[in-house]
Amino acid sequence: MNNRLIRNGTIVNVYSGELLPGNVAIADGRITYVGPGEPAASEVLDARGLYLAPAWIEPHAHPWLLYNPVSMIEAVLPGGTTTIFNDDLFFFLQAGPDGFARMLDALARLPIRYRWLVRLMSQSEYDGEARDFAMEKLAPLLARPEVAGSAELTRWPLVWKRDRCALDAIAHVHALGKRVDGHTAGASYEKLNGVAFGGVDACHEAITKQEVLDRLRLGIWTILRHSSLRPDIPELARSITEDNIDTRRVMLTVDGPAPRSIAEGGFIDEALQQCVAAGVDPVEAIQMATINPATYYGLDRELGGIAPGRKADLVMLPDLCEFRPVRVMMEGRDVAIEGKATVELPRVDWDGLGLRRKFQASELPLEVREPIPVIEFVSDAITRSAGTQVEPAEGDILGVLADREGRWATRAWIRNMAPRLDGLASSYNTAMHLLVLGRDPAAMRRAAEKVAASDGGIGFGDGWSVALPVAGMMMDAPFAECVRTQQELERRIRAAGYPFRDILYSLLFLCCDFLPGLRLTPRGVLDVRSGNVVAKSNRENGA
Amino acid sequence: MNNRLIRNGTIVNVYSGELLPGNVAIADGRITYVGPGEPAASEVLDARGLYLAPAWIEPHAHPWLLYNPVSMIEAVLPGGTTTIFNDDLFFFLQAGPDGFARMLDALARLPIRYRWLVRLMSQSEYDGEARDFAMEKLAPLLARPEVAGSAELTRWPLVWKRDRCALDAIAHVHALGKRVDGHTAGASYEKLNGVAFGGVDACHEAITKQEVLDRLRLGIWTILRHSSLRPDIPELARSITEDNIDTRRVMLTVDGPAPRSIAEGGFIDEALQQCVAAGVDPVEAIQMATINPATYYGLDRELGGIAPGRKADLVMLPDLCEFRPVRVMMEGRDVAIEGKATVELPRVDWDGLGLRRKFQASELPLEVREPIPVIEFVSDAITRSAGTQVEPAEGDILGVLADREGRWATRAWIRNMAPRLDGLASSYNTAMHLLVLGRDPAAMRRAAEKVAASDGGIGFGDGWSVALPVAGMMMDAPFAECVRTQQELERRIRAAGYPFRDILYSLLFLCCDFLPGLRLTPRGVLDVRSGNVVAKSNRENGA
Repeated sequence: MNNRLIRNGTIVNVYSGELLPGNVAIADGRITYVGPGEPAASEVLDARGLYLAPAWIEPHAHPWLLYNPVSMIEAVLPGGTTTIFNDDLFFFLQAGPDGFARMLDALARLPIRYRWLVRLMSQSEYDGEARDFAMEKLAPLLARPEVAGSAELTRWPLVWKRDRCALDAIAHVHALGKRVDGHTAGASYEKLNGVAFGGVDACHEAITKQEVLDRLRLGIWTILRHSSLRPDIPELARSITEDNIDTRRVMLTVDGPAPRSIAEGGFIDEALQQCVAAGVDPVEAIQMATINPATYYGLDRELGGIAPGRKADLVMLPDLCEFRPVRVMMEGRDVAIEGKATVELPRVDWDGLGLRRKFQASELPLEVREPIPVIEFVSDAITRSAGTQVEPAEGDILGVLADREGRWATRAWIRNMAPRLDGLASSYNTAMHLLVLGRDPAAMRRAAEKVAASDGGIGFGDGWSVALPVAGMMMDAPFAECVRTQQELERRIRAAGYPFRDILYSLLFLCCDFLPGLRLTPRGVLDVRSGNVVAKSNRENGA
Repeated sequence: MNNRLIRNGTIVNVYSGELLPGNVAIADGRITYVGPGEPAASEVLDARGLYLAPAWIEPHAHPWLLYNPVSMIEAVLPGGTTTIFNDDLFFFLQAGPDGFARMLDALARLPIRYRWLVRLMSQSEYDGEARDFAMEKLAPLLARPEVAGSAELTRWPLVWKRDRCALDAIAHVHALGKRVDGHTAGASYEKLNGVAFGGVDACHEAITKQEVLDRLRLGIWTILRHSSLRPDIPELARSITEDNIDTRRVMLTVDGPAPRSIAEGGFIDEALQQCVAAGVDPVEAIQMATINPATYYGLDRELGGIAPGRKADLVMLPDLCEFRPVRVMMEGRDVAIEGKATVELPRVDWDGLGLRRKFQASELPLEVREPIPVIEFVSDAITRSAGTQVEPAEGDILGVLADREGRWATRAWIRNMAPRLDGLASSYNTAMHLLVLGRDPAAMRRAAEKVAASDGGIGFGDGWSVALPVAGMMMDAPFAECVRTQQELERRIRAAGYPFRDILYSLLFLCCDFLPGLRLTPRGVLDVRSGNVVAKSNRENGA
């Protein structure tokens, strides 16, 4: 079974940049031969009329958009992605360093190749962050062989300002020979100089052609993003098609897409499609999804190309425009055939790993008697300030971020989000507390109680809810159920007047403190750009 | 002094593959800024009309061709090479692991960036090799930060045959995240598959365009060689100009050129000239000499490009065809101006590092009474068998490789080398014993005694000699004296009828056992291809 000869394919040679006819032999999970010869094999596959490429590598992933790291597998393998570099954020925050280490052990034998990126700091400062992210806790994780570096540094101004603690943490990662993933959304060219100088190795936050050029020219490995939130490759690929830049340090990411996006569009296969549709040469696009990330992570000896000694992670493709593999192999074994994963997924005891979270839903401060800020949505993820009011304007709903232990709450009116929403509660948000939204206090309370009862989830006032028992963010269910859940959520929120594309990101980021605008955070309503808390959270519980 | 702004240059951006106008700021040895801005600096250099490129990297060097690792510096810096990956061979063999480790310490502060490659085995098998190259002796060296991997594996058939010991040694290097340099001269495409599978990362032995393609397509990083012995870039560059291959995994080497070649032609700068003269795009050629080797060795964060955070190793060039820098900087300091090195070279106590070698020159077996093999030179370095004879044919001279401790000798008639040579003795040979050549026993004895008296060297029967007191291979003298010595040696050997270009390589390789032909080796006269000893060495001393 694991001693194969694939004959007569057209091999995508990512080293020389050529398409070449040839045979590929595989034994014990590795490629043993590439060329015109036909080594003996127990199984011969005919690849006539097919392209043979190295399987795709996702250098920057977030395995928690309702799906979890296990349920995600069956969705991404059929499109040909077999290696994924995952952010550790919510797992680490919820389970702590020991729990996360146990999770890595528990996930060691999955039928996909996961490598992990470890956060050096939280997305946002919080009380106790210095303790939770102390280097003595991170160091054993960073040293693990399945950890390839540090995860996106969303607080890039610390690097630019040469914050000692941030620079020491970066130096620690580099001393291990590992990579520091960046996140320099909106950084000017001048500030990017400081970010590059500080040691950030890569960034996936370019949203214009010019931002791609800025990063690449400053020596930052540049990851073109085509996510469900930001499907930017048509714009970003202009750096290649118009400016003809060298793409050896360019990679592709889908940056944690929503479940429906994977089900309908794909994963790295979709980013490839988009590149080629935008006019990028297919071999060059494939290099961006294979040898480039393998080289970036220092794994080019093992991954990212079809050559002797490499792991036999391969896709067989009918064409180089749709990128729909008829067969996907990982270490020489079939993991997907004709769009269907053929692997068995293990059951993981997420609770045993410390990933079950409790939420307190009683005594929510839902009556407003003094002026509170108005947060206005301008896109799925971006908000802005719209003054303060005691009474909501028409279409405003109340938003409350309530401490999961019931000690504090932060409130604002939410405009241009879901004017007809009676009540919704969600543990699915980057603050990892309880977000409650709506115009009807009773419906809001019922929704919050639903979420509390299932130890995390998303609930509506009419009783519909989905449990997210893995860190309050993820379902413990097959991938198809995540897609159905997203669809139902979208149907409901659209019925409540939601005008944007992706409610999952709106919920996720309303409580973040790293994207522009006004946000509900544990400290209070925060103006992210200025760093000012415009209305403190109420630490006494109740309005 | 070390806080500089270089204004108005045209920057060779090896990341994006572009030529871009801009300024470069440097502080404390590193680049701090690249772009249109003008950060304050204590010194401003105007680069109007000049190109600014990262300084060159030589990924595969042998610092012992009469020059030594210190004297070489003043010859290579003016051409713009500031980083060199050196083979450890003769230093290790002569000084042993402890002496070599002390040498690395002693050379730590040279005004050039040396990294070292450590041999995993000798060029040739010999009694005691297993002991000298035991992994317990190599491991502490391989683990050192200035050691970047293992040096060229000349005995590549061991890899192809899956010799356990060779594969274990390779795995040891890879486990350190370091590179295994190969040397697969003459390997067929089919055998190269096995070499790649065995873990060899790079090879510099392609001598045809097809051999470049073979290596590159099999995932082997391919180093185009333009040495004084094999100035092959005009042929090798056809892989780029005709086949349009991706060059990201292509590098350039001059592979240990003779002193005169460096003085007259240059070092990596000459390889660059040759590439561009052969039609390679200048930016692409520069990538092959900068970011490609930096990436190969996992040092792209530190070296090989002009971006913030990188070491400020820079060249300022009037054009991109001659590659003659008007200024060379290493870590922001001038190391060469207008073709002259501006650095101070330290005195190194080579004897104290265990690099002085004794040679026994008495009782050489110079009378031939029975048939001995005839070794015929067909080029500078390649020989072939021409039968056996008791008496020399016209123009044949006697060649004796004599154990430096006087215990054995290997003899052959040497044809088509130097028919009018009376006597020459040389400790300069890969066997590290005493090679004596000539037609006049008295002159041969006088030459050998000269070499013995200076603890290594090259001597002639008429009394002219040069001392090579560093491992019997290198002068302890300024580079210019190495060039003059080579010139005098060439004048003399040409007068003796030498028909080839480079006597240094003929002396070096006559006693090797890794290049095709018949060779004088410690075991006897060896047919390298078959591995057969056609005439054993005389272990009784004397004919």
